Amino acid sequence: MKDKIRVAQYGCGKMSIYTMRYVQEKGGQLVAAFDMNPHVIGKDISEITGTATTAPEGVVVQDASRAEEELKRIKPDVCLITTMSLLRDVEEALMICARNGINAITICEEAIYPWNSDPEMTRKIDELARETGCTICGTGYQDVFWGNLITTLAGATHRITKIKGKSSYNVEDYGIALAKGHGAGLTLEEFESEIARADNISDEERQKLVDQGTFLPSYMWNVNGWLCSQLGLTVTRQTQTCVPQTCQEDLSSSTLGMTVPAGKATGMSALVVTETEEGITIESECIGKVYAPDECDRNEWTIQGEPETQVVITRPSTVELTCATMVNRIPDVMNAPAGYVTTEKMPRTLYRQGSLESYLI
Amino acid sequence: MKDKIRVAQYGCGKMSIYTMRYVQEKGGQLVAAFDMNPHVIGKDISEITGTATTAPEGVVVQDASRAEEELKRIKPDVCLITTMSLLRDVEEALMICARNGINAITICEEAIYPWNSDPEMTRKIDELARETGCTICGTGYQDVFWGNLITTLAGATHRITKIKGKSSYNVEDYGIALAKGHGAGLTLEEFESEIARADNISDEERQKLVDQGTFLPSYMWNVNGWLCSQLGLTVTRQTQTCVPQTCQEDLSSSTLGMTVPAGKATGMSALVVTETEEGITIESECIGKVYAPDECDRNEWTIQGEPETQVVITRPSTVELTCATMVNRIPDVMNAPAGYVTTEKMPRTLYRQGSLESYLI
Ligand SMILES: NC(=O)c1ccc[n+]([C@@H]2O[C@H](COP(=O)([O-])OP(=O)(O)OC[C@H]3O[C@@H](n4cnc5c(N)ncnc54)[C@H](OP(=O)(O)O)[C@@H]3O)[C@@H](O)[C@H]2O)c1
Repeated sequence: MKDKIRVAQYGCGKMSIYTMRYVQEKGGQLVAAFDMNPHVIGKDISEITGTATTAPEGVVVQDASRAEEELKRIKPDVCLITTMSLLRDVEEALMICARNGINAITICEEAIYPWNSDPEMTRKIDELARETGCTICGTGYQDVFWGNLITTLAGATHRITKIKGKSSYNVEDYGIALAKGHGAGLTLEEFESEIARADNISDEERQKLVDQGTFLPSYMWNVNGWLCSQLGLTVTRQTQTCVPQTCQEDLSSSTLGMTVPAGKATGMSALVVTETEEGITIESECIGKVYAPDECDRNEWTIQGEPETQVVITRPSTVELTCATMVNRIPDVMNAPAGYVTTEKMPRTLYRQGSLESYLI
Repeated sequence: MKDKIRVAQYGCGKMSIYTMRYVQEKGGQLVAAFDMNPHVIGKDISEITGTATTAPEGVVVQDASRAEEELKRIKPDVCLITTMSLLRDVEEALMICARNGINAITICEEAIYPWNSDPEMTRKIDELARETGCTICGTGYQDVFWGNLITTLAGATHRITKIKGKSSYNVEDYGIALAKGHGAGLTLEEFESEIARADNISDEERQKLVDQGTFLPSYMWNVNGWLCSQLGLTVTRQTQTCVPQTCQEDLSSSTLGMTVPAGKATGMSALVVTETEEGITIESECIGKVYAPDECDRNEWTIQGEPETQVVITRPSTVELTCATMVNRIPDVMNAPAGYVTTEKMPRTLYRQGSLESYLI
């Protein structure tokens, strides 16, 4: 019988409540946890998950500044990183793992395919991981719902001309910062100057930011890269635009503490358009806005070509789906070759009926 | 550079119009075609597909009675079989391929997972194919839309309790025989005695039919077997029931040449329920009926558990999706080990951007 998989958790916020419980319910063993928030450091992880820990002595969240030393000593099989959304913000955690030969999985949104937004940093992590013989990867909701779901349906298609994707969330479900970042409540003129302008740059300017590692990719930027890589397409051009969303009638927003009048921005769509040598276009958008009463979270994709196929996921439980995907990916990451290995190069995600270690090759 | 894949077509009806064109457009070479219909025999396949054949000398449809002799001589890489829906009805074609070491793919609905409906015949084909070193498999619409689509989403799920599937078609799109077979126009009493009764049998009686190779599986019977095998579940019990569908208002049916009054059967659902040792239940139904004005083809599945996820495909182009899946499966079948290999044991279906032979390992 194989040993239980030993897992470290890096970032003990909202997502970790699920990932840590899922790891334990799938027969994994939590061996360490780190965070930088003083309110979280020192807690036993059972206080965070609300369920008993399978580790008999318990696992106490330690200050992230001790992570390298501790991970070197404990040598977990894999480290789950759930802290931030940009590669530069999870760089430190990923580099600690890469330096010490520890497999790492992060739900950092950029990490799903960082080759097209921060290639230099990705290469740096990749090289180090190859040297020490571990695998680093990004996963999460997009791995399945903006990735494998689409490529599975593409497998039933004869000829694709365009792929259109649209995923939406209600900014009311998050804090004021996110609502403001989406331009909710702005006039269309204000939206243009305060939000849209950052992406009004030439292809050359954008490429320079990418090369410097200072580009700010929207979620779909990396997803389109993942899809093109999976489908074997060569990207010729990719652009990103922020488009204001409006509503026909006034909408009250409790997060903003105001009524957004008809015609003003309720939020925005970050639209990414990718053109390829093969003539296939990918247009995907991520829409965050104050919902009208009849709206709900939706993930909707259309594959155009011969034939055309539309798939809709209504009210996806994004948090649970993200965390289940992350935990189900643990055996894949341990089975993968060394390096920064994006998940389109792994088997598609699979349900884990058995204990996680039973899926190790 | 690899050689083009050489393909034979067995059954030159409606589906072959698509499969033969798709093969050629994906860089395959059609080398033979067979049928038993005197109106089709002797035609050049370009007359059937309506497009030019890439074979310079053309390919003429031959009498299926000559298939064994011809296939033995021509030795195609793979034979596409699009004739009938039950394994016993494609047995001859599959056995010809298995005897002569020719890979075969069929869209016979039972063939997607015949181990649970006609295990003896499946074993017989499997053994022969292993001896001669070829692969036999079933694919089609269900491979993706009732199979890989569901298992891909299952890969984002922590704990499944039940999987519910529902796929519908309009009996008006088919002939009178199908409409009658679905009980359209019957009273509920007539439906019970004429349609539902055949499945009102004990588990032992059903098992006996399966063992004898005389059981009549509905489409979902084999699909549930495929899903359980893919998810690693052990079936403890499986039942099949035909449930009449009714409508609240009168519906006129041009196929039946009558108005189906409110309350009478508009068609039926073939419902298959599978229980497993692992406690996961699969309930899937295939609904064929005279549609009310607001209804359309739908394929809808819900994975219940943590979390619950619902996927809907509206108006799937079943014919094209079936044929594209079949052609996209050609490299998988050639790459698979010898025997009767069901597709849940292969990679999930993939889009073929390049020529088919470029996907051979
Ligand atoms: N890919 C996906 O599908 C997906 C889905 C959901 C969420 N996510 C992403 O996952 C991340 C975590 O989400 P969440 O809801 O769990 O957020 P959260 O509740 O804010 O938890 C993050 C935790 O990590 C800590 N942290 C931040 N930076 C750190 C660092 N450098 N070192 C150690 N600890 C650090 C935070 O501390 P402080 O509180 O002090 O900042 C916080 O305790 C977010 O970036 C989110 O966008 C991705």
